[in-house]
Amino acid sequence: MIVLFTDFGLEGPYLGQVRAVLHREAPGVPVVDLFADAPAFDAMASAYLLAAYAEAFAEGSAFLCVVDPGVGGVRTPLVVRAAGRWYVGPDNGLLAIAARRAGAAQAWRITWRPERLSASFHGRDLFAPVAARLARGEAPPGDACPLSALAGHDWPDDLGRVVYIDRFGNVMTGLRAETLTADTVLVAGGRRLARARTFSDVAPGDAFWYENANGLAEIAVNQGQAAARLGLAVGEPIDIEGEITK
Amino acid sequence: MIVLFTDFGLEGPYLGQVRAVLHREAPGVPVVDLFADAPAFDAMASAYLLAAYAEAFAEGSAFLCVVDPGVGGVRTPLVVRAAGRWYVGPDNGLLAIAARRAGAAQAWRITWRPERLSASFHGRDLFAPVAARLARGEAPPGDACPLSALAGHDWPDDLGRVVYIDRFGNVMTGLRAETLTADTVLVAGGRRLARARTFSDVAPGDAFWYENANGLAEIAVNQGQAAARLGLAVGEPIDIEGEITK
Amino acid sequence: MIVLFTDFGLEGPYLGQVRAVLHREAPGVPVVDLFADAPAFDAMASAYLLAAYAEAFAEGSAFLCVVDPGVGGVRTPLVVRAAGRWYVGPDNGLLAIAARRAGAAQAWRITWRPERLSASFHGRDLFAPVAARLARGEAPPGDACPLSALAGHDWPDDLGRVVYIDRFGNVMTGLRAETLTADTVLVAGGRRLARARTFSDVAPGDAFWYENANGLAEIAVNQGQAAARLGLAVGEPIDIEGEITK
Repeated sequence: MIVLFTDFGLEGPYLGQVRAVLHREAPGVPVVDLFADAPAFDAMASAYLLAAYAEAFAEGSAFLCVVDPGVGGVRTPLVVRAAGRWYVGPDNGLLAIAARRAGAAQAWRITWRPERLSASFHGRDLFAPVAARLARGEAPPGDACPLSALAGHDWPDDLGRVVYIDRFGNVMTGLRAETLTADTVLVAGGRRLARARTFSDVAPGDAFWYENANGLAEIAVNQGQAAARLGLAVGEPIDIEGEITK
Repeated sequence: MIVLFTDFGLEGPYLGQVRAVLHREAPGVPVVDLFADAPAFDAMASAYLLAAYAEAFAEGSAFLCVVDPGVGGVRTPLVVRAAGRWYVGPDNGLLAIAARRAGAAQAWRITWRPERLSASFHGRDLFAPVAARLARGEAPPGDACPLSALAGHDWPDDLGRVVYIDRFGNVMTGLRAETLTADTVLVAGGRRLARARTFSDVAPGDAFWYENANGLAEIAVNQGQAAARLGLAVGEPIDIEGEITK
Repeated sequence: MIVLFTDFGLEGPYLGQVRAVLHREAPGVPVVDLFADAPAFDAMASAYLLAAYAEAFAEGSAFLCVVDPGVGGVRTPLVVRAAGRWYVGPDNGLLAIAARRAGAAQAWRITWRPERLSASFHGRDLFAPVAARLARGEAPPGDACPLSALAGHDWPDDLGRVVYIDRFGNVMTGLRAETLTADTVLVAGGRRLARARTFSDVAPGDAFWYENANGLAEIAVNQGQAAARLGLAVGEPIDIEGEITK
């Protein structure tokens, strides 16, 4: 399976062109959109989102990851193998957290280049053909490099920031719930938030945080829009009471 | 074929995670999004929309239906077989109209539970694996129950309310056009609306109602936005002149 | 491969119903959305967008093209074969530019009609089954007609107008960059715009034009929203300095 994680948006021709390349280069391999609306141009927030959501996918899955404000510039294209999954994307930190959490990961700088490489759409021209190769069982077309050389190798294990807001206004943080306790109070938008199991465990209109279905601490309001209520946007700090946001 | 009918929205990771489960559990079965923007948290409006749009699909199709404000609470997960099609979803009325219109339908309460069941995402963890089983030809993993025990068994045959507004501002009602006549006048937003065959049969800017491509009475304005013009939102009453809205 | 080029939008049941028909009529053929948000009701802008984006697809691809304000009226349904690709859509100019650029193209008026043809959804009922036939290798179900008889046969080779704005605010024009020079200045929204290679070649906040990844002249602002900055919408004129917009 090839999994798409991008900030292209669902609109326009971008995802479709990538899918056309994947169907041509890896016929019969299912392609799934995980996120098409990852935080735009924000490789750091995206890295924590990707790491949390990739874990549920089977070994051998190939993740095509494009949050790439530096496209056309000097950043290196990268392949990472972590916990049996492949990741393809720019070396801007996007793949760093997935790599670190795997324990024993490997990385390669992609040296292969397509015949035609546009200046602005490496997702289609370079990353997609490489993801297709990996999904077909081929080796990464590049040179091994140490993880310590990758952008993002010095980022924290968890990120005390908003990393995604869904259309219901639920606010995902870059904090794994398993690193917190039942008593942990999160502070967001100037409000103290206690933990609950799920929406139906709090009164309508109440704000709380809970472990979402992918293990992230997520801030929500029962029958309400947490982001609007608390004035939160992607990138805003989330404090753990008694600690200082990294 | 597996057909998705949800209020997840197209954004975010929700549909993609469901599709990944379906590809894994029912490899090679095509998956189609029918609605990803069914009326949010509104099982009643959604039930009439689902019933109208499911009819065009072949026997054996499995509908994965998630409009589920009570997720994590006590509502029962359900399988319905109606007119040769399978439906999987919560017992909150969502499947009730499709079941009733089929004449001879059957229902089962799902007793199977996955190894890991999140509190907030039964669409991925419970309903998707069950839909995959049905698409593979397996029996419903649960106990038969009478249709009269299902939520929504006492809802009306047709619903005199707005059930969906598309991006062009066209307003779908829960009324089947075949239950109305060529002379039926609908009253919506304080306006009396006559029937026409299609857009090009009325003057630009005129509001009217017509039988849409799936048999529902739909309110439209030629080259205009009916919802904005008439001030209509999902849930608003649609009266049949001379009758009282149920 | 079947490629969808429509103004249906991603929301609602429209694309899903078309895909269901394609899966049923051409099982196993991959289906890709190229544009679901082509300029609504604007066959002319859409024609230049389609021609630019179709070129990257392999021979034998079948394009299902629906930007069809005249649905239900008298316009003819059409098949075009151009550069080894099939196009199906209404005869309102939408297919005209793709046909012209191919050099030797052929056209057929579709005479086949489905058993059930709704008044408002020919994309599902008529164009999709025809696209499926072509993808299966069958002949166009209609009568050959000369290209000179098609709507749009007298439109210009390139279009000095905005044809698409993506979610980043980048502004695609109907002008092929290969018809312009390194010194060409475009005038849009009262501003003179020079050419650059890509975003990272200009200062943050600067407006410029460049050859996008599909060969169109596209107006952009590095780390900004060009459409908002320049006050541009689909259909607005784009002048080539020293020439008069056609």
